[in-house]
Amino acid sequence: MALVVQKYGGSSVGTIERIKHVATRVAKSRAGGDQVVVVVSAMQGETDRLIKLARQVADRPDTRETDMLVSTGERVTIALLAMALQEVGCPARSLTGRQVGIVTDSVHTKAKIEKVGGDRLRETLAEGMVPVVAGYQGINEKSDVTTLGRGGSDLTAVAIAAALEADRCEIYTDVDGVYTADPNIVPNARRLDRVSYEEMLELASLGAKVLQTRSVECAMTYRVPVVVKSTFVDGPGTWVAEENAEMEKVTVSGVTCDRNQAKLTVIGVPDKPGVAATIFGAVADAEIVIDMIIQNVSQENTTDISFTVPRDESKNALEIVRRVAKEIGAKDVQLTEGIAKISVVGVGMRTHSGVASQMFKALARERINIMMISTSEIKVSCVIEDKYAELAVRTLHDTFGLGTVTRA
Amino acid sequence: MALVVQKYGGSSVGTIERIKHVATRVAKSRAGGDQVVVVVSAMQGETDRLIKLARQVADRPDTRETDMLVSTGERVTIALLAMALQEVGCPARSLTGRQVGIVTDSVHTKAKIEKVGGDRLRETLAEGMVPVVAGYQGINEKSDVTTLGRGGSDLTAVAIAAALEADRCEIYTDVDGVYTADPNIVPNARRLDRVSYEEMLELASLGAKVLQTRSVECAMTYRVPVVVKSTFVDGPGTWVAEENAEMEKVTVSGVTCDRNQAKLTVIGVPDKPGVAATIFGAVADAEIVIDMIIQNVSQENTTDISFTVPRDESKNALEIVRRVAKEIGAKDVQLTEGIAKISVVGVGMRTHSGVASQMFKALARERINIMMISTSEIKVSCVIEDKYAELAVRTLHDTFGLGTVTRA
Repeated sequence: MALVVQKYGGSSVGTIERIKHVATRVAKSRAGGDQVVVVVSAMQGETDRLIKLARQVADRPDTRETDMLVSTGERVTIALLAMALQEVGCPARSLTGRQVGIVTDSVHTKAKIEKVGGDRLRETLAEGMVPVVAGYQGINEKSDVTTLGRGGSDLTAVAIAAALEADRCEIYTDVDGVYTADPNIVPNARRLDRVSYEEMLELASLGAKVLQTRSVECAMTYRVPVVVKSTFVDGPGTWVAEENAEMEKVTVSGVTCDRNQAKLTVIGVPDKPGVAATIFGAVADAEIVIDMIIQNVSQENTTDISFTVPRDESKNALEIVRRVAKEIGAKDVQLTEGIAKISVVGVGMRTHSGVASQMFKALARERINIMMISTSEIKVSCVIEDKYAELAVRTLHDTFGLGTVTRA
Repeated sequence: MALVVQKYGGSSVGTIERIKHVATRVAKSRAGGDQVVVVVSAMQGETDRLIKLARQVADRPDTRETDMLVSTGERVTIALLAMALQEVGCPARSLTGRQVGIVTDSVHTKAKIEKVGGDRLRETLAEGMVPVVAGYQGINEKSDVTTLGRGGSDLTAVAIAAALEADRCEIYTDVDGVYTADPNIVPNARRLDRVSYEEMLELASLGAKVLQTRSVECAMTYRVPVVVKSTFVDGPGTWVAEENAEMEKVTVSGVTCDRNQAKLTVIGVPDKPGVAATIFGAVADAEIVIDMIIQNVSQENTTDISFTVPRDESKNALEIVRRVAKEIGAKDVQLTEGIAKISVVGVGMRTHSGVASQMFKALARERINIMMISTSEIKVSCVIEDKYAELAVRTLHDTFGLGTVTRA
């Protein structure tokens, strides 16, 4: 008898019919002899609906109140799914983030999990019931509701799997696995049978959208085997697990595209020590994650600094950086929103060279200008104009032969 | 500086515009020097929307899960109202039933409050903030969410006012006070300036809908002065307070109509001791409130017993009573849904006689058949066919001169 955590995303529980479908799936797993814990997201569209309400009340809604508001979405789903499970004869009980003991820090709307209690989960399992857990949410030390940021339900599922030492964590979504590229952009993209945690981390953080980045980090830390599958179609899915020799034979495993970034450029920054630290420190204090950074060569004792931030925080970041720019005597701050970050990822890069230059050449052939570059051990990323995004992804997918290479 | 608890019902917070309107009202009270605690209901239609979702999943949704589901409605409102208050410069913080320490028993969907903690409320007030509290909900000893039944937000408000020893509890609704009859039925119905707790209790439980019954009981027990006012129009409202000599001069203060009851008749009940106790015990065990009871004179050692229950629990009650009827050897059980209970209420009845006979005569004049009768010290109720309900109310309102008598 295995202990399995199953997570169903917003599209998997987007309608009453789909909730009923998930109930039959869960009941089937349980009938097959597994102990099942279910984690669910809000019904598709619900979180957006709630945020829209908040925006009608306030331009920048208070984050604590935003968490109080949006955390209701998952609560609706857990109650409905627990009812649906009971209807198909499967004893079930809904539990909130608080009730399963998910304790977080107090950074509302993007809290970090500090602890997963799990006692109530174990009790509920021992009673022969399926715990149906609200993803995406926890409470802080003041007992206020917090949320884990978009995609946080994945993290809830993996964190619970780690806390319960579950045999595996199954992530059910509207695609049947992790692909070499977004099939909407690249028609001949292939499903990967297996990716390493490290690759998945890059793929996730670069915009593959299938698994939330922090959930992959958590899975890697606690060595939780994760499998990404379709809610609607049976299939093997994609396993996210430890790296093996087979994987290293392949140079590039996927091409990703992240269109949710914006670029800020601080122009005419006085070229003296500590200036960059002042700018980035102020942005970090606002809990805004900076991704890529470029600093131009100094001219006449001033320099330009560019960096990217999540697009939905770009206005906030712009305001902060404008204030800091004034303090440090920089000339101007510019915001560029129409950008895309295209990346190629693969653990094989550790042992294969030339990936970056192949990438630059391929983009040049299509006359796509590269605005920023960053690299890591297992990926190369380029920021380009957003309008070239699809073309760039298709070109790179072809260049690295992803549509044809067979991979175990 | 007074401490005031203000409760806003579902129609008062039914749209974003209305939530903003409530925010300005609350801010105004606070600017006037009062300490304000706000209690709110779910946005109009929200609870029904959620229950409809549940019914699409299950015919009889589990009550624990129903509470998990519907309690989200108030959470949405408190978050939005707290945001709206912050927008108008009034520091505010949303708090759930759990967070303000409302502990209830475990009878899901109609839990009773056992304790109101209030520490977090006092802290929040001491920080200079307006606590915005989710009405209608609490938690039980297992820390599961419970709800207090329809209209439970009134009870939350009064219970909090009692716990904080507030100077008054203001109930804001879509009408400007308590009327001699439903103005939708009786165009010349008058607003009462003042009613006693006892009268209000009868008016509330008989279907006046303005204040939930248990909230009036709670106000009476803890002597909380309550005033019912309109959210939309300024005015004196109706005070619900202790009885005074002025009130006793008036025989009848109001006529009410309750259309949310159904009648069950057990036919051919063996006429032996303990039979009634068996029937009503079984219904009470299911936490269904029985209102009126009639037992016919015994014929050939059998009798018929009729009683009324809330209409939305009639199917459930029917099932229970059918089972019991079989056990005790009764012939049949019949359910009648199209009934209305018409009542006249007034503390003056204690010293004036003849109200009941005046009532029966008035109904007879209109050829309205009386199916059941019940009386108390300060009210007389008759169950009639539902189709005569409006006619009966108008007739009785005229008969007792309620449209013309001036009352202090």
